[in-house]
Amino acid sequence: MSGGVEMTAGTTSADTSPEAVMATMTRAARTAAAVLAQAPTAAKAAAIRAAAAAIRRQAEAILAANAADMAAADGLTPALKDRLLLTPARVEAMAAGLAAIAALPDPVGAVIAAWTTPNGLAFERVRVPLGVVGIVYESRPNVTADAGALAVMAGNAVILRGGSEAAASNAAIHACLVEGLAAAGLPTDAVQRVTCRDRAMVTAMLTAAGGIDVLIPRGGKGLVAHVLEHARVPVLAHLDGNNHVYVDAAADPAMAQAVVLDAKMRRTGVCGAMETLLVDRAYPAKAALLTALLDAGCEVRADAALLPLDLRLVPAQPLDWDTEYLDAVCAAAEVDGVAGAISHIAGHGSHHTDAVVTADLLVAERFIAEVDSAIVLHNASTQFADGGEFGFGGEIGIATGRLHARGPVALEGLTTYKNVVRGTGQVRG
Amino acid sequence: MSGGVEMTAGTTSADTSPEAVMATMTRAARTAAAVLAQAPTAAKAAAIRAAAAAIRRQAEAILAANAADMAAADGLTPALKDRLLLTPARVEAMAAGLAAIAALPDPVGAVIAAWTTPNGLAFERVRVPLGVVGIVYESRPNVTADAGALAVMAGNAVILRGGSEAAASNAAIHACLVEGLAAAGLPTDAVQRVTCRDRAMVTAMLTAAGGIDVLIPRGGKGLVAHVLEHARVPVLAHLDGNNHVYVDAAADPAMAQAVVLDAKMRRTGVCGAMETLLVDRAYPAKAALLTALLDAGCEVRADAALLPLDLRLVPAQPLDWDTEYLDAVCAAAEVDGVAGAISHIAGHGSHHTDAVVTADLLVAERFIAEVDSAIVLHNASTQFADGGEFGFGGEIGIATGRLHARGPVALEGLTTYKNVVRGTGQVRG
Repeated sequence: MSGGVEMTAGTTSADTSPEAVMATMTRAARTAAAVLAQAPTAAKAAAIRAAAAAIRRQAEAILAANAADMAAADGLTPALKDRLLLTPARVEAMAAGLAAIAALPDPVGAVIAAWTTPNGLAFERVRVPLGVVGIVYESRPNVTADAGALAVMAGNAVILRGGSEAAASNAAIHACLVEGLAAAGLPTDAVQRVTCRDRAMVTAMLTAAGGIDVLIPRGGKGLVAHVLEHARVPVLAHLDGNNHVYVDAAADPAMAQAVVLDAKMRRTGVCGAMETLLVDRAYPAKAALLTALLDAGCEVRADAALLPLDLRLVPAQPLDWDTEYLDAVCAAAEVDGVAGAISHIAGHGSHHTDAVVTADLLVAERFIAEVDSAIVLHNASTQFADGGEFGFGGEIGIATGRLHARGPVALEGLTTYKNVVRGTGQVRG
Repeated sequence: MSGGVEMTAGTTSADTSPEAVMATMTRAARTAAAVLAQAPTAAKAAAIRAAAAAIRRQAEAILAANAADMAAADGLTPALKDRLLLTPARVEAMAAGLAAIAALPDPVGAVIAAWTTPNGLAFERVRVPLGVVGIVYESRPNVTADAGALAVMAGNAVILRGGSEAAASNAAIHACLVEGLAAAGLPTDAVQRVTCRDRAMVTAMLTAAGGIDVLIPRGGKGLVAHVLEHARVPVLAHLDGNNHVYVDAAADPAMAQAVVLDAKMRRTGVCGAMETLLVDRAYPAKAALLTALLDAGCEVRADAALLPLDLRLVPAQPLDWDTEYLDAVCAAAEVDGVAGAISHIAGHGSHHTDAVVTADLLVAERFIAEVDSAIVLHNASTQFADGGEFGFGGEIGIATGRLHARGPVALEGLTTYKNVVRGTGQVRG
């Protein structure tokens, strides 16, 4: 667009303020997005496959960059260091992930709905890319590859702002994405990386209304809360995953135990992990269920009704019902049937993921209908809360807001639609 | 929810600050929304039909209230007075509109997508209500009826804040909606009206994150801009309808003239009206097209290329390309084919509604693909930009943002979805 040239000409070259840098990036992204929006599926897939090949070819350079990041990461907790670390297996998984994204069906151009109005107008709702996506993330360098590739496959341009602790790793991975775009003849500005480590660059992204169409924060609660509070751009995110498993009186005890143990203990640090166990007052195997959790190494903070069932149970404090531990800890409460569970979740849940275990289909359907969460499961572990597990072909994040995409956000969530009307000269008259 | 009672008990009765009043309203709305979300279609339709009956029965009281509003409306422009005015025919149209909404298919519970994952999880994406909708609007009292009924039919609770100039009219119509809810056994808090005329109540709505799920402003540009700038709640809206009609070289001149005249002159004050005419340099009947617009009483502000074609043409100034006149005025520019039109619209459009007139299907499809607007039309007037005309059964507004609903927002736009997973004891392991 010629406007970009004029605006650059009117700006002094000395203007390196975060706002000016971001404005330059978003203009370039908008121009690239217009090309990506029209790009054939084959070109987008070729770019992502070429990026995967580059990652495999550059694996040693990526690992060396990551080693430099790790060497400078003394202040990080062990959990964050593990997120930052790349290994040959993780680099290969990143490349394989890109190849999988390149094989996904292209959402762009799909006709979502179509009909003809009485006056002969042919109406179509057609899926189109969102435009310019901003990702603000921490620690895990694989987000650079995943998020960049998902955005491109959905026809968007993306601006990536990773944490400074992963700067060298992210730069090396970003270079592979750029190489892939160039190899496929697509504009390399479709995947831009914020290189300036000034936190004011994040603020410039949050306030880039008109320049960035949607922001997706990925990382700790501090980062997500900051983005949600300060963004003047729409945000897709989840702040908390305070997830519940409700074990109904009619649950099969073996199934209940397996689901609860998996939901809490498979991986305690993921956003789909169970944080509060709700047990029906009439469930016959309460002690066995709690004992199994305790035996698995989980600290269980129980309400007064459950506390006598095992000496290792700890009394729950009021805040426990609202806490996302992301650790081998959970709260546990006795509730009066499915109505009690629904009421507890309405008061304390975070609208992320909640599950019911029961053989009673009426109970299950009531739970599904009345629990107001992005993901509700019956007789399955909350740890399935993942776009890949649901068959979305990956995810760029999980959203607990109510607008646009809810739950795992993947290719479809990175698109919007256009209303297309084809007539034969109709006027409204 | 018992939480409401406790919080009320903890608040002194003297707290009548806008924030406290809005918090009380949003709590009541949330409780009502939980009931509406589970309400059968028949109950929602019965409430709306009963409201329509009440409006017909109370027509004289509504007209008397409107007369009081009109008597106090000295400061308003004639256009705003016309929007405020109710007549017996307008009251009947309002009732008929409600009856039409009650007959619409219920979007809630629809399964949008469904599949089974390889490990046997049955996945469903199910449409559910948005929750609590806030509407901030001006002048037209019929919005009270339309917006209230659409929100209820989609299973939501709604908080209505009309302009103080229409307070008596809105109160009379709101009473009919409440009567309809009560008659159908639904909670009357599902449609609440902000009665306090303090503008701080609008601010309290804009900042009611968690209390209001989405805000829909309807009214003048000043109101919409204020909401967009200050809202901490997601907004569905359009600020501008700077709409274009591009007349291609291959357009049938009679069709082009009919479409352009309708797009500009049918009703000049609607958001779907054409504001800029783009004419292909190679279009053979340029003078006749401009003359027809001028003869119809439209002021036409033309660029240098078109200016010599009719003595009545006025030279366009740079700002004209970005102006929504909402009047019998338009800008007109010559462009180089469809590429020139696409480029002009990319630089000046507002992503609302744009149309192409051409007999060349390749040109039409390129325009449809590359013009990035909520509504794109081929060989039809931009004045069709209306949910009712598209077959949505009315609209609560038109959105030009990219997330959630784009274009006319009706029942579907007032819903979100839930990811439902039914298993047989699956764990992720």
